[in-house]
Amino acid sequence: MNSDFRNPLRTILLVVSIIGCSFVNSQTDEETIKTIYKTSLTNGHSYQWLDHLSNNIGGRLSGSKNAELAVNYTKAELEKLGLDKVWLQPVMVPKWERGEKEMAYFETTDGITKVNICALGGSVATAENGVTANIIEVQGIEDLESLGPEKIKGKIVFYNRRMQPDLISTFDAYGGCVNQRYAGAMEAGKYGAVGVIVRSMNLRQDDLPHTGSMSYGDLPVELRIPSAAISTNDANTLSEKLKENKDLIFYFKQSCQQFDDVQSYNVIGEITGSEFPNEYIIVGGHLDSWDLGDGAHDDGAGVVQSMDVLRLLKESGITPKRSIRVVLFMNEENGLRGATEYAKVAKEKNENHIFALESDAGGFTPRGFSFATNDTNFKQVLGWKPLFKPYLIHYFELGGSGADVGPLKTEGNVLAGLRPDSQRYFDHHHAANDTFEHVNKRELELGAATMTSLVYLFDKYGVNPVPENNELKD
Amino acid sequence: MNSDFRNPLRTILLVVSIIGCSFVNSQTDEETIKTIYKTSLTNGHSYQWLDHLSNNIGGRLSGSKNAELAVNYTKAELEKLGLDKVWLQPVMVPKWERGEKEMAYFETTDGITKVNICALGGSVATAENGVTANIIEVQGIEDLESLGPEKIKGKIVFYNRRMQPDLISTFDAYGGCVNQRYAGAMEAGKYGAVGVIVRSMNLRQDDLPHTGSMSYGDLPVELRIPSAAISTNDANTLSEKLKENKDLIFYFKQSCQQFDDVQSYNVIGEITGSEFPNEYIIVGGHLDSWDLGDGAHDDGAGVVQSMDVLRLLKESGITPKRSIRVVLFMNEENGLRGATEYAKVAKEKNENHIFALESDAGGFTPRGFSFATNDTNFKQVLGWKPLFKPYLIHYFELGGSGADVGPLKTEGNVLAGLRPDSQRYFDHHHAANDTFEHVNKRELELGAATMTSLVYLFDKYGVNPVPENNELKD
Repeated sequence: MNSDFRNPLRTILLVVSIIGCSFVNSQTDEETIKTIYKTSLTNGHSYQWLDHLSNNIGGRLSGSKNAELAVNYTKAELEKLGLDKVWLQPVMVPKWERGEKEMAYFETTDGITKVNICALGGSVATAENGVTANIIEVQGIEDLESLGPEKIKGKIVFYNRRMQPDLISTFDAYGGCVNQRYAGAMEAGKYGAVGVIVRSMNLRQDDLPHTGSMSYGDLPVELRIPSAAISTNDANTLSEKLKENKDLIFYFKQSCQQFDDVQSYNVIGEITGSEFPNEYIIVGGHLDSWDLGDGAHDDGAGVVQSMDVLRLLKESGITPKRSIRVVLFMNEENGLRGATEYAKVAKEKNENHIFALESDAGGFTPRGFSFATNDTNFKQVLGWKPLFKPYLIHYFELGGSGADVGPLKTEGNVLAGLRPDSQRYFDHHHAANDTFEHVNKRELELGAATMTSLVYLFDKYGVNPVPENNELKD
Repeated sequence: MNSDFRNPLRTILLVVSIIGCSFVNSQTDEETIKTIYKTSLTNGHSYQWLDHLSNNIGGRLSGSKNAELAVNYTKAELEKLGLDKVWLQPVMVPKWERGEKEMAYFETTDGITKVNICALGGSVATAENGVTANIIEVQGIEDLESLGPEKIKGKIVFYNRRMQPDLISTFDAYGGCVNQRYAGAMEAGKYGAVGVIVRSMNLRQDDLPHTGSMSYGDLPVELRIPSAAISTNDANTLSEKLKENKDLIFYFKQSCQQFDDVQSYNVIGEITGSEFPNEYIIVGGHLDSWDLGDGAHDDGAGVVQSMDVLRLLKESGITPKRSIRVVLFMNEENGLRGATEYAKVAKEKNENHIFALESDAGGFTPRGFSFATNDTNFKQVLGWKPLFKPYLIHYFELGGSGADVGPLKTEGNVLAGLRPDSQRYFDHHHAANDTFEHVNKRELELGAATMTSLVYLFDKYGVNPVPENNELKD
């Protein structure tokens, strides 16, 4: 029917809607952002969604039954929000299973000392009777060359470089160590090692091993050796005992397995833009997680915050001019297949992604954002900084965005990552204590509100034309 | 002996000391502050002191045996630091004991529902067989007048105003409710109420009652009615049930008791200033705590951070020009006797306290400071703000300092309070879960480093002369 005004109900609805819009349009940015924060803190949905994802579903490793449940659950929840579209984007993902709980100990003249380990994601299993060998401790991959194959062959390489505690950003400390975990087995395999034990990427001293992805690159199958993480407490004990007896015997057993790729999905919801529907703003986190905890911080928090961005826009009475999408990426942890697929399809369809925001640094108190963009757009962002001061959001820096939105980078757009307080992140990251009870409701909701506010501003003001002599910054 | 240079050892020490001083003196403020943070994060003592205070001593209510143990322990630890003086400052403190665990339930036609309560600090006990009465729910003290004595007499007044969730500072939300706890019984007693139940000052929904101080003012003894806090979950349930049945019966029993004042102490340590020994800079927290948890956040954190400030100055090679004191105040929670006594003695001795810094807002990630001072001094502080940016310390605002340093305020000095992230503070405040495992080591150490850095700057630059037409700000 074209004659809307003949239908009294639609007329009333239209008038109400116009009043609603003009109410929001007459608000200042300060007032709108205040409404967004208030809505999130008094009527947010992030926390109850996270409760379900964490406690009713649990760890969501790519290709697992739980990952499938998470796809179905988040799609169904997005469908309740009255968005313009909700759909699944198919993507094939790797499937790796941990198998039985791992076991490890070392043996000295004092007897046997059990230690806490977990297989690294993507590792091969040990033989059925495990690996038994001497240990050689190193402080990083660069030590292998100076030791040479004669000192490594037949041994288990123990990577024990610590995260540097005096760096304020714990992500910087992580960046200084994580190559041991990712490439440690690939490199040690080349020298004839029979296994790899890596100190957990954790600044705290505790008994929890932290998993995470590793790769053998194109190493021949016969050189692929099992690799596991050891808890920080046990890494310290092992290192001490090695000083007393460099010939101690270490044993570990794990039964993990890589399967063929399986079908999975990115989950996407959209509010179609009222003025510029082909300018896209996306906000997302990753739906998969590691298997040891329930993935509440990594990245259940980012998932539910991203879902709530679209809901909070609606609840705050904002009608976006541009198309706003929530994208729940599959397989960030061990393959990035979802992000790769999303960017590929976006390119094929010539969708203009002007702004992409990721939350994948935990559900802690938000401090601000880091950006990958050019100077012109960054200056625009800095102009918005005072709007965030009442919410103690102060960190607006160039310095990258996030793994899942990274493939969307163009000359003229803006990528960003939410930056929550990072101090506790690696206490939980990829470990059995990445669980719901370690997420604070208010901190999570403040993150969702902070993301929504930035999306609101980019929707309202757009991005700038690409300047001549454009220089990308990250 | 006056002829120092005839003693070779002293000569060597003197030379080493001069080299040490000139090394620090040649450092920029940026470099010195970097050293302070690095020292705290790699070689801090806060966390191990807090472990002892929390786990080996526990809750330290004024006048208790634990408070005495805490005095002895912190004095002994300060004596190990090689300070110039360590002493105890006597102060008489109130002594109140909780007695047996409290008990409460309400009764409807469905039967009995037990609820979680705890006596408020300073409350009288119920009669031995408890209080049994109808409940009248109010949203604050101001409701009493409109209800009048006829609706209140013989009843238990249930103060159920919530902390406002959309305030970003949880301390602001606390400030909007805490008069119910402090003065609720005093006011309800005037209207003939027989008891008071107060919703716990907690933004989270959980089962823990939160204690805290209350006062009867100069109310005659016969009007002093027992008052207790109820957990937020139980407050919600009770409120719902009252809607169904306003005549439901509530029962509670508590056996707390006020004793005569007892002898206690502030614990004080000092590095005497090398140039201006009669200009004092103090840093402190309160040694007493409530009894339900182990007082790790409130205020074990502030105690150990303050102790570490003096230690970190020494470890960082800084020789203070002014006298730096750590003051561990006794009885902040229910009397402020320690703070009052410290300020009284300081005035008697004409000690010029140019700067006093308090940490009493939990051991969470530090965000900055709030200040009570005049414009001239505040401008000086704002000039230092860029020095703190690498440590994500961004909050420098006028807005009060802290209860223990408050009595030291003068026209020309500076008072300040450390402002950590406040989101989780009231999840633990005065409750059984204010315990060591909820304090993160790095967050605590960052707080100690942030405090030390500000003390270093005030020691180096001092404060400004009092301007004409001075206007105090807080």
